[in-house]
Amino acid sequence: MVYFDNASTSYPKPECVYTEMDRCLREYCANPGRGAHAMSRTAAQGVAETRAIIARFFNFGDPERIIFTKNATEALNIAIKGSLRRGDHVIATMMEHNSVVRPLIELEKENGVEVTFLAGDMYGEVTPSDVAANIRRNTRLIVCTISANTNGIFMPVAEIGNIANRYGIPFLVDGSQGAGSVDIDFKAMKINLLAFPGHKGLFGPQGTGGLCISPGIELKPLLQGGTGSDSENPSQPQVLPEALESGTLNTPGIIGLGAGVFFINQVGRQNIEDHKQRLITRMHEELSIHPKIHIYSSKEPGKNSGVVAINIDGIVSTHVSKILDEQYSIATRAGLHCAPFAHKALGYTAKGGVLRLSVGYFNTQDEVEFTLHALQEIADRSVDVPYELKTHQCIQCGACSRSF
Amino acid sequence: MVYFDNASTSYPKPECVYTEMDRCLREYCANPGRGAHAMSRTAAQGVAETRAIIARFFNFGDPERIIFTKNATEALNIAIKGSLRRGDHVIATMMEHNSVVRPLIELEKENGVEVTFLAGDMYGEVTPSDVAANIRRNTRLIVCTISANTNGIFMPVAEIGNIANRYGIPFLVDGSQGAGSVDIDFKAMKINLLAFPGHKGLFGPQGTGGLCISPGIELKPLLQGGTGSDSENPSQPQVLPEALESGTLNTPGIIGLGAGVFFINQVGRQNIEDHKQRLITRMHEELSIHPKIHIYSSKEPGKNSGVVAINIDGIVSTHVSKILDEQYSIATRAGLHCAPFAHKALGYTAKGGVLRLSVGYFNTQDEVEFTLHALQEIADRSVDVPYELKTHQCIQCGACSRSF
Repeated sequence: MVYFDNASTSYPKPECVYTEMDRCLREYCANPGRGAHAMSRTAAQGVAETRAIIARFFNFGDPERIIFTKNATEALNIAIKGSLRRGDHVIATMMEHNSVVRPLIELEKENGVEVTFLAGDMYGEVTPSDVAANIRRNTRLIVCTISANTNGIFMPVAEIGNIANRYGIPFLVDGSQGAGSVDIDFKAMKINLLAFPGHKGLFGPQGTGGLCISPGIELKPLLQGGTGSDSENPSQPQVLPEALESGTLNTPGIIGLGAGVFFINQVGRQNIEDHKQRLITRMHEELSIHPKIHIYSSKEPGKNSGVVAINIDGIVSTHVSKILDEQYSIATRAGLHCAPFAHKALGYTAKGGVLRLSVGYFNTQDEVEFTLHALQEIADRSVDVPYELKTHQCIQCGACSRSF
Repeated sequence: MVYFDNASTSYPKPECVYTEMDRCLREYCANPGRGAHAMSRTAAQGVAETRAIIARFFNFGDPERIIFTKNATEALNIAIKGSLRRGDHVIATMMEHNSVVRPLIELEKENGVEVTFLAGDMYGEVTPSDVAANIRRNTRLIVCTISANTNGIFMPVAEIGNIANRYGIPFLVDGSQGAGSVDIDFKAMKINLLAFPGHKGLFGPQGTGGLCISPGIELKPLLQGGTGSDSENPSQPQVLPEALESGTLNTPGIIGLGAGVFFINQVGRQNIEDHKQRLITRMHEELSIHPKIHIYSSKEPGKNSGVVAINIDGIVSTHVSKILDEQYSIATRAGLHCAPFAHKALGYTAKGGVLRLSVGYFNTQDEVEFTLHALQEIADRSVDVPYELKTHQCIQCGACSRSF
């Protein structure tokens, strides 16, 4: 099996992630921060080590200002809903994932928050001047993905950070598609809030994610509950990280995440980025010469976090993905990728989304060649493919009318 | 090491939990519900199987009305905040954990929700008639733990369910301390919302939990985000489970949880309950005759989910726990147990909480005898123990002033 769905979740994980998670579960998986016994302290120490390694990895400060969440979606919801109040204005890009779009639309509908979604160029990249031009007196948050999940395009995050900083507006970055291979420097990029998933480029398991919160930013928690501290207080304590980490943490997951970041440090983040860049450059090279294949991702080095988004004339993306899966055992993702505005921005909604090939560190040149060959075969015989375009066909169960 | 901290998180887990999680991570841990390729379908099928086995285990109906959360705290927050509006009244007990108390106090302070916390008998058990007597015209939710985490006392959940049902008031049960060993029959107990942790009695890993939602109950989500479905819709879809499961699920954790429930079914839930009952009966038998030991848990069979809460004259609970840990390698938890009102109800706050011995299926009679012997030794020499009562001493780092 060839796995090109790393933008959904990375697979496989480094061996150390498997072994450290198993060791944690078997040897010391007590409740961290909930007891004073030796095993609980060992678990708490493991969690603290992951906080510390992540703080260093993103050039962030105090590890205690990193909160662990179940995924990047929770981190983004905490950052967005914890920041904005009725009457506030927020700027985001049209390339944001539904983990940003849906909370914003909810606040717009229910809480009177004003939202501006910025369109970008042919790949969706916004310009910093466009961000500056849309700042209002009541702009209280700027949200930007570091790289779009649909086509991998990078956003000019450092430049937007400069603008946000100049206007004193908190800057939230969604690191979902970059964290792990892309250089994310919290301080240099003038980020105030960085949401990240654990299970993508950072090589942790699913069930992990987090939010780095710069000093001075106070977020209202979405959850209240036991924090293991200040137990006699029936109100939520205000000290980080507990204030935003109610309930038992995912200790084995966080240990796995720490192992994942350790692996990146061992290999070298730049080497991972370079490897991915080589793979997508080769994909671009070959796919761009096929007359029936359209590419929606930038081939410019440094402009793509590892995604090649394409369509093949005459055949809807979900069916290309299905053929790749069934006939070649190649795992990809097709459709709208939980980013409705991104597709509108790029203009291919009507075609049923795009086929996304997302590469990871464990992909090889041979896998790329095999996949290019498969795509060329499918494109060459696309006129013969009997599938029809069904925008509301369920590609998961085949029976219901949900669209993906 | 002897582990008597199962009420915090169960340890160890059954072997099948370790092996199935590792197998999932290594072999098929794609993103469930986010792609149509074979590995994603396998992951989705594994998640669906856990939903199904849990639905059967609790005699619940449609598995699709079970949502997975990161812990019971998230499930309780979704149930409470998703149900209550300004001006509503809610009834809870004083034995609730902070995962119930803190969301309710937050709603009381910020959203004008009225809350009644009911006191119970000497063990905190409330009477159904007290619940009925406190129902108002605007009562919109009754919340009750199935068993208190401080001392294990059972609440008359079936009777309260009958009352709630008669008045048409949604009934939320916190299954944190019962689920797995206690018979929780969703339909027979007339429960409408059942929150459960995955990592305690159900033997799953940390990072898992869930909420069973009866038909007719609609909850407003706390998070919006990608659901893998209805991608072109910038608003949250309303269909369960996706509506309340934004972002990537904890697939390996959910697989482990399924394996945990499978293990319970193999052993027999009643056998687990009986085993735990035997252990706490023996503890009661021996501890109740020591003049310096006070027991705060019921010894009546069927009245205790597996907790023996005690104090030893002249020595604060956190220090008994410390001695047990350091000198006997016995893991327990002491202090307030994230349940401030429970301790007030039971009247031992001033003593710095209680020492909690919480048993699990993997504990043995020998471990109980060894622990009883240790406690007797500590109690016998308690006058010589140099520790002082410091209610605000941090028992985790020893340096800060946080209380636990």
